[in-house]
Amino acid sequence: MKINVKECAAVLMQQEDILILTHAHPDGDTLGCGFALCRALLALGKRARVINADEIPAKYDYLFEGIEAVDFEPKFIVAVDVATENLLGELNEIYGGKINLCIDHHGTNTLFAEKTLLEEVAAACETMFKLIKELGVQIDKSIAACLYTGITTDTGCFRYASVTAETFRAAAELVELGADNGAINRAMFETKTKTYAKLERLAINSMRFYCNDRVAVITVTQDMYAKTGSNETETEALAPLTRQIEGVEIGLTIREKSDKTCKVSIRTFENVNAAELAKYFGGGGHPQASACRFDCSVDEATKQLIDKCAQLLGDK
Amino acid sequence: MKINVKECAAVLMQQEDILILTHAHPDGDTLGCGFALCRALLALGKRARVINADEIPAKYDYLFEGIEAVDFEPKFIVAVDVATENLLGELNEIYGGKINLCIDHHGTNTLFAEKTLLEEVAAACETMFKLIKELGVQIDKSIAACLYTGITTDTGCFRYASVTAETFRAAAELVELGADNGAINRAMFETKTKTYAKLERLAINSMRFYCNDRVAVITVTQDMYAKTGSNETETEALAPLTRQIEGVEIGLTIREKSDKTCKVSIRTFENVNAAELAKYFGGGGHPQASACRFDCSVDEATKQLIDKCAQLLGDK
Repeated sequence: MKINVKECAAVLMQQEDILILTHAHPDGDTLGCGFALCRALLALGKRARVINADEIPAKYDYLFEGIEAVDFEPKFIVAVDVATENLLGELNEIYGGKINLCIDHHGTNTLFAEKTLLEEVAAACETMFKLIKELGVQIDKSIAACLYTGITTDTGCFRYASVTAETFRAAAELVELGADNGAINRAMFETKTKTYAKLERLAINSMRFYCNDRVAVITVTQDMYAKTGSNETETEALAPLTRQIEGVEIGLTIREKSDKTCKVSIRTFENVNAAELAKYFGGGGHPQASACRFDCSVDEATKQLIDKCAQLLGDK
Repeated sequence: MKINVKECAAVLMQQEDILILTHAHPDGDTLGCGFALCRALLALGKRARVINADEIPAKYDYLFEGIEAVDFEPKFIVAVDVATENLLGELNEIYGGKINLCIDHHGTNTLFAEKTLLEEVAAACETMFKLIKELGVQIDKSIAACLYTGITTDTGCFRYASVTAETFRAAAELVELGADNGAINRAMFETKTKTYAKLERLAINSMRFYCNDRVAVITVTQDMYAKTGSNETETEALAPLTRQIEGVEIGLTIREKSDKTCKVSIRTFENVNAAELAKYFGGGGHPQASACRFDCSVDEATKQLIDKCAQLLGDK
C-alpha cells in the first residue's frame, strides 16, 4: 500500500524498537536516509538502529558519529532507498517478506513492503527531509549532514537532470540547519585516496568502446585491487567516468567479484533507459543509473551486455 | 567607488551604448555575467555587446545564441568578473583606465573601475541575478541559462565551500525560470571531447608530487596539444584534478604557451591562500582558486613555484 509523508509520519509515531535496513553496497543516499531516520527516532525517545549487508566505506563514518549502539528485538522493520528486496543483499535472507515500511524514490520499486512511501525525487533523502519535519523533530547539524549527504551523492553533487528547484531549496535549508556542504562535498567527491587514484588510472586505461563508440566499458578486476591496494568499496566513483566521453550513450562498469561473478553499473543519457537494461538482467535502478549482477565471468557478462546494448541502440 | 545593487541598477538605467568586457581566457562565470547583462540591456531597448580578448570555447555558444551583433561607438564600459585590469588580457591595452563600472565577486578586486559593485559571493552571476531583477527586466529562459551557467561553473557544480544557502536558492529560482540545469551541467562537466579525454590522460600521467606529497603539479606542454589535437581552451577542467589526491594541499596546473612562457592555475584548501600565492607572482583570484603568469619556461616556473610553496607550507 502506498502512503504519503503525513501518513508515514503517523505510522512511525506509533512504532517502537525500529530496525532500519539500507541496501547492499550502501551509498550516501541509503546511509544518509537510514542514519537521519535513526537520529530522528532516537530524538523522539524510541529505540532504533541501522544495519546493512556490506561494509560501510570509511568516508561515511560521520553519518553515525555519536549514535550509541542499542540492542533490542525489532518490532518494526523499515527499508530505506531500497527498490527491490534483492537489493538488501544478505539481509534479504533474514528480512525478506518481513519489511513493514519502505521509504524510496525509485520508479522501479516493487512495493514489496507492507507500506511504501514512494516519491520519484532526486534522492530518497529529499523525502526523508520532509518526513522528519512531519515527525516534528528538531533537525540538528547531524541530521542535516545526513540528509545533505544523501542529496549531494545521489545527484552527483547537483549535476544530474533529476535535480529540481525543490532539490536546491532542500539543500539551501539543510545548509542553514548546519550541514557543512563544502566539507561534505570534499569528503564525497574531492578526496581520492592514493589507492583509489591508482585504481582509477588502471580503470581508465581499461576503457573499451563498442557499437560505434556509443558504448564505453570499464572493467575492474580482482587483479587491479591487488595491484593498487584498493577494494570494491572504492569503485563507486568509477561508473560516471564511462559516459563522460563525447558520443557515449551507454557506460558500463563491470566489477569482478572475488567469487569470479560480477556486478555491473549502468549509466546512460535520456536516449536509453538504464533501468530497463538492468531489469533485462534481473537488476534495477533509475532511468539514467542502474545496476545488475551476473553469475558468470567478466568476459561473458561483457558479451551479453554488448549484445543487448547493440539491440537497444539499433532500435534508435 | 563601491556601489550596491540598487545604485548599480540606477547607473545602468542612465547609460546607452554599453560595451561589456569579460576577462581573458573567458570562463562560464564571466561569459554568463556578460551575456546575461547584455540580454537584459537589449531587453531595456539599449544597445550593448560583449567582447573579450580570447576565443570563447565552443561549449559556451548557447550563451549568446540569438543575440544580434550591433555596431556602435561605446559610451559606457563595464567589466564583469574582472578582479584586476591585467586580467582583461589584450583588451587592457585599449580599455585600461577607461572602465566605468566593474561587477565582480573577487575579494582581490583592485577597484580599478570608476564604480565597482563587489559582493564576495560564490559566482559573479549571483550578483548579476540580483542586478537584473533590480533593472526590472523579465528574466527569460536565455538569461536564466546564462546566470545558471555562471553559478554552476564557478562553484564546480555546487561543490565548493563558497556555496551558501543563497547560492542554492538562486539556482532554484533559475531552474524555475527555465534554465535547463541537467543539460547545462552535462555540457559543462559531463562531456569530454575525445581530444580532451586524451589530453587529460597525458596530464594525469604528468602529475608530480613535491613537498612531502603536499603539492601536486600537472604540466601541459605544447607538445601534448600537438599529440592529442587538443588546445588551451580545453584545459579548464584539469586544474581541479590536482587537489583531489588525498594529502595534497596545493595543486598547480602549469600550461606552456606557444611563446614558451606559461600560465599557472592554483588550487588549494583552507590551509593555504591561493590568491596570496598567485599575488606573489603578479596574479590573483580567490582564496582557493587563483592564477598567475610566468615569462619563463615551465621548468623555471615550476622551480619558483615549488620554492614558494615549500616556504608557505613550512610556516604551517
